Amino acid sequence: MDFSSKLLENAVNEVARLPGIGKRTALRLVLHLLKQPVENTNYLTESLKVLRTEVKTCEKCHNISDTLLCEICNNPKRDASVVCVVEDIRDVMAIENTSQFRGLYHVLGGKISPIEGIGPQNLEIESLIEKVKNNEIKELIFALSSTMEGDTTNFYIFKQIEKFGVATSTIARGISVGDELEYADEVTLGRSIVNRIPFEQSMKL
Amino acid sequence: MDFSSKLLENAVNEVARLPGIGKRTALRLVLHLLKQPVENTNYLTESLKVLRTEVKTCEKCHNISDTLLCEICNNPKRDASVVCVVEDIRDVMAIENTSQFRGLYHVLGGKISPIEGIGPQNLEIESLIEKVKNNEIKELIFALSSTMEGDTTNFYIFKQIEKFGVATSTIARGISVGDELEYADEVTLGRSIVNRIPFEQSMKL
Repeated sequence: MDFSSKLLENAVNEVARLPGIGKRTALRLVLHLLKQPVENTNYLTESLKVLRTEVKTCEKCHNISDTLLCEICNNPKRDASVVCVVEDIRDVMAIENTSQFRGLYHVLGGKISPIEGIGPQNLEIESLIEKVKNNEIKELIFALSSTMEGDTTNFYIFKQIEKFGVATSTIARGISVGDELEYADEVTLGRSIVNRIPFEQSMKL
Repeated sequence: MDFSSKLLENAVNEVARLPGIGKRTALRLVLHLLKQPVENTNYLTESLKVLRTEVKTCEKCHNISDTLLCEICNNPKRDASVVCVVEDIRDVMAIENTSQFRGLYHVLGGKISPIEGIGPQNLEIESLIEKVKNNEIKELIFALSSTMEGDTTNFYIFKQIEKFGVATSTIARGISVGDELEYADEVTLGRSIVNRIPFEQSMKL
């Protein structure tokens, strides 16, 4: 692309570095900002700048937070002995939305992925093992995505904490509520048969 | 969405105000910035801020430019008597890419669109008529998109300049180069038959 303005080119290139945003989309977004009042651009840049410099991670669960201890970890009504291991804040938000979990979280900040160069030392695994070692946790729930990276991470953590005798579980895999059986993939359907639950129990949900 | 951080929520809301970016995409983009070094966010916000406050529009063609007169208007090799009327900078870039046009541009900054509340007074139409009135232009080429808004804008401008006797033309509509006839829409195919050109002329292109 040949730009008539160096400033425009710079801005487009920076926006196009965001994941999933190509040069054309970046140009569209930047031109939109140019058509809007200057305050809109200020709000956008300020909010990003303040976030990037001032946001904290909760020192207990490593979730994104404005305070040293996040609202969930700080809530005395939550059961601190049950900890759900998740990849990032989006998973926390998704689980919180269900209102079905009253324990705490432990945010790893990603999954072990040799291809992307992410090893256990890049994630908050050490601090999780520390918690288990200190007998703070009764049950650990693995809630990572069911991918190769997710399974690898689960297994790596499991191997490290096995000896401390903490109870572990993973979230159930099965047919989505409202889904037709015939369209489910074999692995999911297979797992949902193997891990079937008593009918009376399902009625209570 | 329930955010654990007010700063994160603000940033996501601001990013989600961009066209075509929903809350989920905004969250993905913002979390990406949080994982990157702080300089990346600084580059992004600085480039947007500098662009928004310092970018100029060429005082002749109203294209986005870093200088008072853009490179194209400033180029003595370009034919100032032929002016191509376009909607915005993206059209200038597209036509420049073809290397087929040696005249100047006039960037309207949009199309007349009553639905979006854009009238002739919101566009650079007055300055175009002024140019025609001052006998600066020999030929005016309308190169707006072939939509109702584009046609309305063309017609509005044409009605205003008719009396000055300037030559006007519109870019040719027809089958794209490399396209199969059978898949072309009727209107386009119809126009390409009505506006056929001598064969010898087509061989020169």
